[in-house]
Amino acid sequence: MECRFFSSKCMTMSEIAHIEKTNSSQLSSFRPLVEVKSTPRFCSCRGMSAKASHSSTPNNTYVPKKALSSVDEEKIGAGNLLYQVNGTNSSLFSRNLRMLDAFDDEYGGVIVDSERLPANPNVFASMLRFSISHWKAKEKKGIWLKLPVEKSDLVPVAVKEGFEYHHAERGYVMLTYWLPEGPSKLPANASHQVGVGGFVINENNEVLVVQEKYCAPPFSGLWKIPTGFIVESEEIFTGSVREVKEETGIDTEFVEVVAFRHVHNVAFEKSDLFFICMLKPLSTQIMVDDHEIQAAKWMPLVEFVEQPLIQQDCMFKRVIDICIARLGKRYCGLSVHQLASTFDGKTSSLYYNVVDSQHNNCIGN
Amino acid sequence: MECRFFSSKCMTMSEIAHIEKTNSSQLSSFRPLVEVKSTPRFCSCRGMSAKASHSSTPNNTYVPKKALSSVDEEKIGAGNLLYQVNGTNSSLFSRNLRMLDAFDDEYGGVIVDSERLPANPNVFASMLRFSISHWKAKEKKGIWLKLPVEKSDLVPVAVKEGFEYHHAERGYVMLTYWLPEGPSKLPANASHQVGVGGFVINENNEVLVVQEKYCAPPFSGLWKIPTGFIVESEEIFTGSVREVKEETGIDTEFVEVVAFRHVHNVAFEKSDLFFICMLKPLSTQIMVDDHEIQAAKWMPLVEFVEQPLIQQDCMFKRVIDICIARLGKRYCGLSVHQLASTFDGKTSSLYYNVVDSQHNNCIGN
Repeated sequence: MECRFFSSKCMTMSEIAHIEKTNSSQLSSFRPLVEVKSTPRFCSCRGMSAKASHSSTPNNTYVPKKALSSVDEEKIGAGNLLYQVNGTNSSLFSRNLRMLDAFDDEYGGVIVDSERLPANPNVFASMLRFSISHWKAKEKKGIWLKLPVEKSDLVPVAVKEGFEYHHAERGYVMLTYWLPEGPSKLPANASHQVGVGGFVINENNEVLVVQEKYCAPPFSGLWKIPTGFIVESEEIFTGSVREVKEETGIDTEFVEVVAFRHVHNVAFEKSDLFFICMLKPLSTQIMVDDHEIQAAKWMPLVEFVEQPLIQQDCMFKRVIDICIARLGKRYCGLSVHQLASTFDGKTSSLYYNVVDSQHNNCIGN
Repeated sequence: MECRFFSSKCMTMSEIAHIEKTNSSQLSSFRPLVEVKSTPRFCSCRGMSAKASHSSTPNNTYVPKKALSSVDEEKIGAGNLLYQVNGTNSSLFSRNLRMLDAFDDEYGGVIVDSERLPANPNVFASMLRFSISHWKAKEKKGIWLKLPVEKSDLVPVAVKEGFEYHHAERGYVMLTYWLPEGPSKLPANASHQVGVGGFVINENNEVLVVQEKYCAPPFSGLWKIPTGFIVESEEIFTGSVREVKEETGIDTEFVEVVAFRHVHNVAFEKSDLFFICMLKPLSTQIMVDDHEIQAAKWMPLVEFVEQPLIQQDCMFKRVIDICIARLGKRYCGLSVHQLASTFDGKTSSLYYNVVDSQHNNCIGN
């Protein structure tokens, strides 16, 4: 598998995401020789030297993009192109007609330029077919083809040529083609969703609890801690504070992740990581979110624990036991530490506990 | 946001995944009235009462699926269908022709039956258009449309009718349509990839380290711990052991997660959670994986830490400091505990530390 952290090994996905971003701005200005400037990445050292030469000219002769782009080619018409694809004419003109704009990646693969795709499915089919045969001859490995939603006409064409879906976001679908024999070694799609729960307890030993608005009969009446999914690029420590605020109106401060749960096949066969966070209340006045929450209140800890639905469930009970142990200083959760790495120039969040910080300067925050 | 854990609130995605799985077996046997039997879910109580009535009959009159399916309709031809879509014939026959097979979900939405889609794009276009207008009239909310790769011809049709991509896996793309005004409230796609690193140290205070085979110059020569991504539905504790075994041939036993790192925008704008695991070696003889690894060895801890690339990077250094503190018993990581929950009948992994297990039976494993 792809390696990361402590790693001099790269992440293909990371590199591709980076190349895509870089290209979109660079290509639009029609620079003569496109050089992808990679910022160093903590987890992907190969990504740092990403080679991004155009592969639209089979013999590596440079052809100014402005002179002959996929878009220009299209004006000439599919019929003309189809003829040339099967022909042997090796002039600069016909050679350029037949290949999709693309970049080599550092793994022996190719990234098709999603900003320079032809709109006409027939033109695309011909170019794609010719490109694949060229890439095969060059012993290329993985082909990455990102089709924006406005080019959805090209999806069935790519599938017919052997591409598979890799992942999709609202605005595009990414397809891949693994050219060598044997199973694809391309990195997998995102595999997890991440949720957070906020355990908020005040000085009177009361827990902040909510009742969901829409609830199946077996669970109606259950008082639970506020929970939710973190949103794109959100931190666990901010996500837990946000969820509590949204559902109850209570301001809190993140203290620690006290435990996390890992479970599989919960959503479209994806896995789920759920972080239980200890939060310190900064306000007292509850304001319920009418959309999601039926009621919220401060509930005595004993009463909260004694709910039959919690007593009957060993997972629920264990989590509450952990939170109680944490309150009694018999437990140390993981606090968050923002650290930059010179490897990618990025600041990330490292969660770890500090048991003996007074005597061990190494791991103090 | 959707809530989970301690939660009586449901996960739409979870429910849908479940309904899909259940339907695929139930529908193929053409049961007269399809009832989706939901197993209780730890995190989705609304999912437990998922209503799965067919919405292919606008007035809820039951029409046996075998008698008139989308597939049968297709045999009649697109032209005939198109006429009827715009016509006013309200007979059972024509009404059934015009709607896609679908199920109501518990959130006021609709899940199109992906196993009973017409193959002909024109037929599909007409049925989809008619279905959307019907669902709008019924004030439905989110529409879920899963198109298998072999029905990729239907993708541009759905996009033209207003559908957006939601996510994709190798064999299908999922599209959604949020019918009400305002932004979609459908749950998001998976947001994270999850990696693991194995810190393995033997009785001689030597760390198990590897050199990657393909490495950009700035990192050539760096000795690092074995790392990798966990595969679909794999546990963190088994994934870390597997990666170490694959890269070095060393058998290990999982001890603890000592820390984890959270970083964003690493792959297709997804986030990354990386778990540093302390592992206990069970063998000594190294066998290098030739595909990924250049070299592997047992390296004195002092030598490992003193590598300039590690000394210069505060993230690397901090993680090693944590591992060293753990070795000196000045740190407690999170051990894994397999727990079943009566809420979903599932066993999942709960990671937490046990600081004072002798005096606190509640949280002992």
